[in-house]
Amino acid sequence: MKSLKIFCPATIANISCGFDVLGVALDAVGDEMIIRKVKEKGIRITKLEGQDLPMETLKNVAGVAGLALLAECDYEGGFEIEIHKKIKAGSGIGSSAASSTGAVWAMNKLLGEPFSTTELVKFAMEGERLASGVAHADNVAPALFGGFTLVRSYEPLDIIPINSPSKLYATVIHPQIEVKTSDSRKILKTKISLKDGIKQWGNVGGLIAGLYTEDYELIGRSLVDHIVEPIRSILIPAFDEVKSTSLKAGALGCGISGSGPSIFAFSKGEGIALKVAQAMKDVYQNIGIDYDVHVSKVNIDGIREIKS
Amino acid sequence: MKSLKIFCPATIANISCGFDVLGVALDAVGDEMIIRKVKEKGIRITKLEGQDLPMETLKNVAGVAGLALLAECDYEGGFEIEIHKKIKAGSGIGSSAASSTGAVWAMNKLLGEPFSTTELVKFAMEGERLASGVAHADNVAPALFGGFTLVRSYEPLDIIPINSPSKLYATVIHPQIEVKTSDSRKILKTKISLKDGIKQWGNVGGLIAGLYTEDYELIGRSLVDHIVEPIRSILIPAFDEVKSTSLKAGALGCGISGSGPSIFAFSKGEGIALKVAQAMKDVYQNIGIDYDVHVSKVNIDGIREIKS
Repeated sequence: MKSLKIFCPATIANISCGFDVLGVALDAVGDEMIIRKVKEKGIRITKLEGQDLPMETLKNVAGVAGLALLAECDYEGGFEIEIHKKIKAGSGIGSSAASSTGAVWAMNKLLGEPFSTTELVKFAMEGERLASGVAHADNVAPALFGGFTLVRSYEPLDIIPINSPSKLYATVIHPQIEVKTSDSRKILKTKISLKDGIKQWGNVGGLIAGLYTEDYELIGRSLVDHIVEPIRSILIPAFDEVKSTSLKAGALGCGISGSGPSIFAFSKGEGIALKVAQAMKDVYQNIGIDYDVHVSKVNIDGIREIKS
Repeated sequence: MKSLKIFCPATIANISCGFDVLGVALDAVGDEMIIRKVKEKGIRITKLEGQDLPMETLKNVAGVAGLALLAECDYEGGFEIEIHKKIKAGSGIGSSAASSTGAVWAMNKLLGEPFSTTELVKFAMEGERLASGVAHADNVAPALFGGFTLVRSYEPLDIIPINSPSKLYATVIHPQIEVKTSDSRKILKTKISLKDGIKQWGNVGGLIAGLYTEDYELIGRSLVDHIVEPIRSILIPAFDEVKSTSLKAGALGCGISGSGPSIFAFSKGEGIALKVAQAMKDVYQNIGIDYDVHVSKVNIDGIREIKS
């Protein structure tokens, strides 16, 4: 095997209560990449379509993640990477994570799988460090493991794949404004009240329990964020209205996807998820903001090979 | 049915990462109570053995919890309560919760079960308010529901029963020193760092996932408390040594039971739990502190009727 063509899923990180620890992979939106094993050492980005992003290896998240992998193995050759971006950079649905994880997942396959999935997460996190200044794992983990994932701990890195209820659908709307992950981190407070912390870990516990027991109502009740959403939602136009109309349309819960500006909602069944999409669209149409909308079931496999 | 004799289990609250939200019911230690339906209005504590506690209805946690229930129903009569304490007050394994929950559970039975279990939790919380100044639910919920429970939210009160792995055993040692719940609350900080919060809800997520998947190693890795244990453990003699020898003896994890001074450890299987008990005892024997030790499987039923 000399080359692989792959689908790299978009991901929703944080998921309301699970700031920095929870994420989920989507099915309906993702990048395509082609990774070729070549004799020449190092990593080269040979094509980058769909987004205006740097192609220099050290400035590209796939390049940096790939180099992190290469540094840990004996392979004497290198890789060429083609990236066909379908996920918009800065949209808050794991654009950088898709590229970083795609690179290391395919390279690992082409090398005979010397690395565990958790090791691949570590390499991909270097791409995240380049993109946002913080090597967070909440997008790269679901892209690599599929489904819902929990980053239980960063030191040591401990990723827990969580059960994904089969009827759970995500609706994601991306208002076409830019919020940089690094900016949206800066406005967070470094201290929180113990009281809010207790509420937050109560909801994380409830969400995990709901995912295992496939209790959709409990999942909905647990999609509450007392800490980050009240601050970050200020950066997203009409967030409160999108949220309230989504819930009115039948969504189980609604929150900021990653660091925004995308907003996600979970619904039981595709029918409700489509209604939620319409409700979200109406809000931005009314105020004249362009948007993309995705309706997707949970992608339980994560990155996958596709036919050339 | 005019009277009930019941077993009211001891409980471990907080469970390391789950401060104020997690709890579990024990099997090997608990109070006995007899509750009689009588014509005379109100609640009377007619006997109280085993501990030196007030018998006046308004100063007794069972009395106060019982009155909270009576205030919500049409019943014209009253109840007599006998309490045979086996759980030492102030030990940190839910002594007050056992009495409060026992009263309301039996009264509800004797009245034909007009109230849901979550409603009973609310009544029993009034007993906790009397005992510690805070109407917390993390001990009363597992006593009433059995097994592990999560208090997802206080407003509205939302109790989630969590799966209890069948091989999970608790070892609890109670060093004979007094730590008042109200005192051990006072020393807590009202602010925590966002960083510690993230670690804490990562561990709560891991613990809940471990309980559902019966992954004992994951349960162990998640029994970490970055917020409360570092502060409260200072009040408990030789806490660090008890913890380290418990882990060396094979415990999955170890922490403060409730607000202490009891220390709990979880183990996979009774054999290891007994070894952990011996290791804990040795520590207190060496430094000359009296103790009680309990080894118990998880009590998945909670309060139960026993033969008169």
